[in-house]
Amino acid sequence: MKYSIQLNAKGKLQHLLTIEGLSRSHLLEILDRANEFLSFGKKIELKNKPILKGKSIFNIFFENSTRTSTTFEIAAKRLSADVLKLNMQNSSVSKGESLLDTIDNLIAMQADMFVIRHPSSGAAHLIANHVNLAAPEIKILNAGDGSHSHPTQALLDMYTIRYFKKNFRNLRVAIIGDIAHSRVARSDIWALSALGVPDIRLIAPETLLPPEVEKMGVTLFSDLEEGVQGADVVIVLRLQKERISSPVLPSAHEYSKFYCLTEERLKNCKAGVIVLHPGPMNRGVEISSGVADSINSVILQQVTFGIAVRMAVMDILNEESEKYG
Amino acid sequence: MKYSIQLNAKGKLQHLLTIEGLSRSHLLEILDRANEFLSFGKKIELKNKPILKGKSIFNIFFENSTRTSTTFEIAAKRLSADVLKLNMQNSSVSKGESLLDTIDNLIAMQADMFVIRHPSSGAAHLIANHVNLAAPEIKILNAGDGSHSHPTQALLDMYTIRYFKKNFRNLRVAIIGDIAHSRVARSDIWALSALGVPDIRLIAPETLLPPEVEKMGVTLFSDLEEGVQGADVVIVLRLQKERISSPVLPSAHEYSKFYCLTEERLKNCKAGVIVLHPGPMNRGVEISSGVADSINSVILQQVTFGIAVRMAVMDILNEESEKYG
Amino acid sequence: MKYSIQLNAKGKLQHLLTIEGLSRSHLLEILDRANEFLSFGKKIELKNKPILKGKSIFNIFFENSTRTSTTFEIAAKRLSADVLKLNMQNSSVSKGESLLDTIDNLIAMQADMFVIRHPSSGAAHLIANHVNLAAPEIKILNAGDGSHSHPTQALLDMYTIRYFKKNFRNLRVAIIGDIAHSRVARSDIWALSALGVPDIRLIAPETLLPPEVEKMGVTLFSDLEEGVQGADVVIVLRLQKERISSPVLPSAHEYSKFYCLTEERLKNCKAGVIVLHPGPMNRGVEISSGVADSINSVILQQVTFGIAVRMAVMDILNEESEKYG
Repeated sequence: MKYSIQLNAKGKLQHLLTIEGLSRSHLLEILDRANEFLSFGKKIELKNKPILKGKSIFNIFFENSTRTSTTFEIAAKRLSADVLKLNMQNSSVSKGESLLDTIDNLIAMQADMFVIRHPSSGAAHLIANHVNLAAPEIKILNAGDGSHSHPTQALLDMYTIRYFKKNFRNLRVAIIGDIAHSRVARSDIWALSALGVPDIRLIAPETLLPPEVEKMGVTLFSDLEEGVQGADVVIVLRLQKERISSPVLPSAHEYSKFYCLTEERLKNCKAGVIVLHPGPMNRGVEISSGVADSINSVILQQVTFGIAVRMAVMDILNEESEKYG
Repeated sequence: MKYSIQLNAKGKLQHLLTIEGLSRSHLLEILDRANEFLSFGKKIELKNKPILKGKSIFNIFFENSTRTSTTFEIAAKRLSADVLKLNMQNSSVSKGESLLDTIDNLIAMQADMFVIRHPSSGAAHLIANHVNLAAPEIKILNAGDGSHSHPTQALLDMYTIRYFKKNFRNLRVAIIGDIAHSRVARSDIWALSALGVPDIRLIAPETLLPPEVEKMGVTLFSDLEEGVQGADVVIVLRLQKERISSPVLPSAHEYSKFYCLTEERLKNCKAGVIVLHPGPMNRGVEISSGVADSINSVILQQVTFGIAVRMAVMDILNEESEKYG
Repeated sequence: MKYSIQLNAKGKLQHLLTIEGLSRSHLLEILDRANEFLSFGKKIELKNKPILKGKSIFNIFFENSTRTSTTFEIAAKRLSADVLKLNMQNSSVSKGESLLDTIDNLIAMQADMFVIRHPSSGAAHLIANHVNLAAPEIKILNAGDGSHSHPTQALLDMYTIRYFKKNFRNLRVAIIGDIAHSRVARSDIWALSALGVPDIRLIAPETLLPPEVEKMGVTLFSDLEEGVQGADVVIVLRLQKERISSPVLPSAHEYSKFYCLTEERLKNCKAGVIVLHPGPMNRGVEISSGVADSINSVILQQVTFGIAVRMAVMDILNEESEKYG
């Protein structure tokens, strides 16, 4: 999968498809821009800015996701864009139309930006490639494609880590869960690496680790206590229901016995550790209620930051389009 | 179930959860405010007022209801609010997330108001309690919770009654139908009592009357002709399909034989009686077409008034939030 | 079915229900108006005009159609209208409410325009008749009713033909496919006739031709090569899945063997022929990929023009309503 198509000739973001291939400065530009959409008082608040007034954004979801779709919609509306929600599960796709024919039709409706969620890995790239030829003025924002990439989730995770830990230089970050099938894990690893986190640890049963993952410069652990030892940041992944009772995982109960992040296990981390989770949580499966509701949990801040990060990405893509378009 | 959480320290509405516990003056304030959103010419027209410009309202529906969801959306848009529709039946809830985790996530997205419809009695209170601790600036508007409460429906019924009957002092009001399972009936009884209606009558087969209902200061009738005798107002409830062929009700045909409001039976009421129905109607089951389309029927006016009443509630809740927030 | 109810006393459009009964000048007025919503540079672009600011449009879909619903929503938003989407498949209709009761409720919510898609032929007329009595200020726009009419599709087809062929006077237009069940075909034939196209040809297996179609002044062909001979314009219809393996059509394969428009068969047309399709396409069934992606295909331009045409219709209906309303 090529990722350079997300950069234009000057090396600036023209789409956001994946974290892979983005430099430290690309990532920091987005995190810094997100700051502009937040007020940091007693409570952290989102700000409105009419940057996308008159622009039209299509939220094209081939896969259901209330949470992601909603946060993108809020982000776009806070920037004064017009948002069109397209639930593609009940659409022409089900009438047998090909993906690119569907996209061509949406291009002909003349939006400024497509936010795309698709169950197949690589769908966002396929669409961006096509758009680059057919309608280069349209910006593509990948809201999750199969088990491949979920770049805005990684960006909001990075924003959250930087907010609480100030910088990335000396961090030990542990990711626990179904790494093999997680676009969040993959995107987080790329982002943490690009931002210079020296110690990235993956904690999972062997059946849930992807092949050749060690090439990504991470350390693998099958023992949770050992893996989280001294961690500054723990990212807990959601256990997808569809994995349970599959050959890779006998039962949720079995999983939680070894891989649920409990208060007891959290004590192995560094004092002041922060716990992230992309939501929705399975309390008692991958995370205990004690941890989810503890002072270490920054799971709800992630949601607020996520809107600001999505506003930042939309703002940056729009800027490039105005400059070079 | 506590209802005082819907009032702030000064006794003003901070949420609208239920009619229970609201005083006559609370109710009249809302009805009076609704007047401001209506023009009374040859035709009654809704007015637009940009009172909620820049405010964001989440329409959170855990239960399907095109009609209620639509009227709330229209009300919010006529006040210039941004409205986000969240159909929670296809959402994280189905992924096993707890209700309060879902709500916490929505809070983190920083709306100004939640309009909530939920199939469980007490859900709106549970959420308001939680919001009062976690984000007291967010206002909760109950759009129907289980068989408990549907306050805006009662308010629009009261508005309609006052519009046609001028005041509540000498009225005989009959409610016909499945009182036991109806949040509309319950809410109407509370509202009629608070507004001083002296004669409230419930007409239903015994299997559809709730236990201990007589404590509410109403008179019970199992005979329709007798119950509607001399009534100024008749509120006909919808017979929910799910009751039919259940142990409490042998068949729709059986029900309509005794409890369908027909033109013949309507003659027992006072001249000039008005007939209300929350919709959607089962013509020929609980109400005959003759009555539904008669000059006595004010069922469509209820819909128009309902939008004005919802605008009024949003306006009042927003005002309180601006004053004390 | 009466169509004159779509014209007011001065012969002006007050609803758009069907092409049948519209004069050449009605059609040309719409096509000319659509020009105002397009910029014709290197690329054809849609323009925004705040003509419907403060107006409220209900998109009432009793039948699923992402594409049509989306283009109407875009059209309305580009005119600054408020759009309310009503997916009536999950609504009171399923609770047993009658169509006219549903419409009465929507009327009571006081919209300015209803865009209606319904699976039953004649539904738009039924609703317009009712609205003319109950709320004559509301404009009805038929977005497809059963196998009867789809007027905006025909209008966008006419716009496309005029754009590429300049006028209608000397054209040979061939329509290929399931004429019998197609509201698109029916609407196109009326429009082409009204606009003076001298040679309209229908190409279909006999089982997919409607009875008495020859009265419409068209020529019938069961042989595709013969039918498209010398055609300036070919309109390919979508083969609806529900026809396949029915008594009228043994299989998609059998159909495509004789009626798929291939590059080879396209050679029988006049040089410079344009190919239209209402979408979504079944590539390899009614149209080959070679033709769909050829320089002769104007299928995506149809989509862009379709939004402009819908803006034009909304603008004209609104104008009449302001003038005579």
